[in-house]
Amino acid sequence: MSDKKVLLDYGSGGRASQRLISSLFKAHFSNPILNRLDDAAFLDVTGPLAMSTDTFTVDPIFFPGGDIGSLAVHGTVNDVAMLGAKPLYLSCGFLIEEGLDFDVLERIVQSMGEAARNAGVSIVTGDTKVVPKGMADKIFINTTGVGTLLTEDHPAGDRATVGDVVLVSGTMGDHGLTILAQREGLPLETSIESDSAALNHLLGKLVTQVGDVHVLRDPTRGGLATTLNEITESSEVGIVLEEDLVPVRPGVQSGCDVLGLDPLYLANEGKFLCILPEEKAEKALEIMRADDKGRDACRVGRVVADHPGKVVLQTPLGGKRLLNMLEGEQLPRIC
Amino acid sequence: MSDKKVLLDYGSGGRASQRLISSLFKAHFSNPILNRLDDAAFLDVTGPLAMSTDTFTVDPIFFPGGDIGSLAVHGTVNDVAMLGAKPLYLSCGFLIEEGLDFDVLERIVQSMGEAARNAGVSIVTGDTKVVPKGMADKIFINTTGVGTLLTEDHPAGDRATVGDVVLVSGTMGDHGLTILAQREGLPLETSIESDSAALNHLLGKLVTQVGDVHVLRDPTRGGLATTLNEITESSEVGIVLEEDLVPVRPGVQSGCDVLGLDPLYLANEGKFLCILPEEKAEKALEIMRADDKGRDACRVGRVVADHPGKVVLQTPLGGKRLLNMLEGEQLPRIC
Repeated sequence: MSDKKVLLDYGSGGRASQRLISSLFKAHFSNPILNRLDDAAFLDVTGPLAMSTDTFTVDPIFFPGGDIGSLAVHGTVNDVAMLGAKPLYLSCGFLIEEGLDFDVLERIVQSMGEAARNAGVSIVTGDTKVVPKGMADKIFINTTGVGTLLTEDHPAGDRATVGDVVLVSGTMGDHGLTILAQREGLPLETSIESDSAALNHLLGKLVTQVGDVHVLRDPTRGGLATTLNEITESSEVGIVLEEDLVPVRPGVQSGCDVLGLDPLYLANEGKFLCILPEEKAEKALEIMRADDKGRDACRVGRVVADHPGKVVLQTPLGGKRLLNMLEGEQLPRIC
Repeated sequence: MSDKKVLLDYGSGGRASQRLISSLFKAHFSNPILNRLDDAAFLDVTGPLAMSTDTFTVDPIFFPGGDIGSLAVHGTVNDVAMLGAKPLYLSCGFLIEEGLDFDVLERIVQSMGEAARNAGVSIVTGDTKVVPKGMADKIFINTTGVGTLLTEDHPAGDRATVGDVVLVSGTMGDHGLTILAQREGLPLETSIESDSAALNHLLGKLVTQVGDVHVLRDPTRGGLATTLNEITESSEVGIVLEEDLVPVRPGVQSGCDVLGLDPLYLANEGKFLCILPEEKAEKALEIMRADDKGRDACRVGRVVADHPGKVVLQTPLGGKRLLNMLEGEQLPRIC
């Protein structure tokens, strides 16, 4: 553990920036495109492409199951993959508060490099800004990803069709509850951790082997309830969600009960929902369950013609209630 | 002027985020790709591509000649164009401090929309995070751009060749001095303002009409001196810069004299340097001078075999001194 700190001149564009790039970023992100170190990267891809961006502000920056670095890779990889694309390249913009421990930055960069290698993407270009102490909180990371489309009929939020079924790839709320518990210092079952993970390999299989996947989305900020609401609005259909079919870990449910939270509104960072024709559901579930990232995949609802633009929750006792989009902010800096 | 503030829930991913996207971003950035509002954007381009990212933290956020919004568009458009590419698409990640005046955000978004239209690029996907008050300073913006290469022999930092000449597109130091003067409350000649501008149209003409442009770079953070040093290191050549040929506005020079700054190290946001074979120089200067963004273009130096990796400044009286890369941070939050 060194006591080296991140200084303002690391972001100056001068000699100290050069040293940071060659000693840290080239070491952990090394690939032939990045190593050229021009202002822009040269990508030998052919379109059509998907592109997505996300800025990560999670607090705390290290948490059970991940850190801001791996999360920044997974989040953008997943957003690109949700369009039915194979993510290939990421850019990476660091915004660092002066005085951050250099070791902390190095742990984060190392974690990003590892996450990128596991996801099969290259970090090809980057930028580092250091702002004076107090002008930012430790570190924020933007990643932007591009990838090539795997199918012509790519999934989109407006393609949910009456008769389709709604699948989720696993338990809901793990990431959100983990972050909140860490921040509030709540004791948690040791088994509860963020689900932060790259989903692109599994999604690639789904899109190419099942085909005709209408919608893919990762229920991050706002959770499953908010994501389903967005889809009902874009697709002008209704969705019925069966409460007792939605998988929630007992430890997450009990944490939510204590804190008065609803797992349907908690962020997930390694889960997706998939809407597709009923006759495709079994095949999709088979592929999902054969993959480590979709072991607990199951069917949770269906797309209906009634109540277009609305999500209705069907409770185990046969009751029904409207499941609104998140109003207000349940958890700032969750991702 | 309303007294509306940016609230935490604008970044929640829920209903308030939706309203922000539809009332603000769709209004000012409107284009068919963005308007689909999926997690990722679908780009109908074919490669090879250039990709570049930059995070903007400039303080103050409004300054003579521009603002953080137009700067965020110009900066990334220029970085993509420096690789000999035609910038087409930008992503945009906002990081906003809770409590920012909504009017301020709207002015910035409007300015970005205008800058993007003028540069001929589309903002196709975005992300907004709001952090609690005190966790960031007003607003930071990341933009990431992609574009298609205009030539096969694209310019790169390692292509400077002995015998090449070094051209600059105009006066040095305008942006850096403007920001510093604003921040320190120094009185400035009213004619001095940031040179923030999109250079892609002019660069496109250079690359396609002159051809064989070896290096294109925008001397932003660290200024002309630092950028030339990077090039000598990448290309393993020396560069001789003739001090009295480097154009500097009298108002910028006198501001620098008062503050003890060197315009060769000050950031530029609407200028570029161009290194190419001597026989191409006249044609290049002609094209540059015919364009509003290159009116003051001139030759400032040459690439030599001596002192590889070093930049030597030749003074008007025949003296020579080593021009080092920027050490330390002259001006944090300059861009």
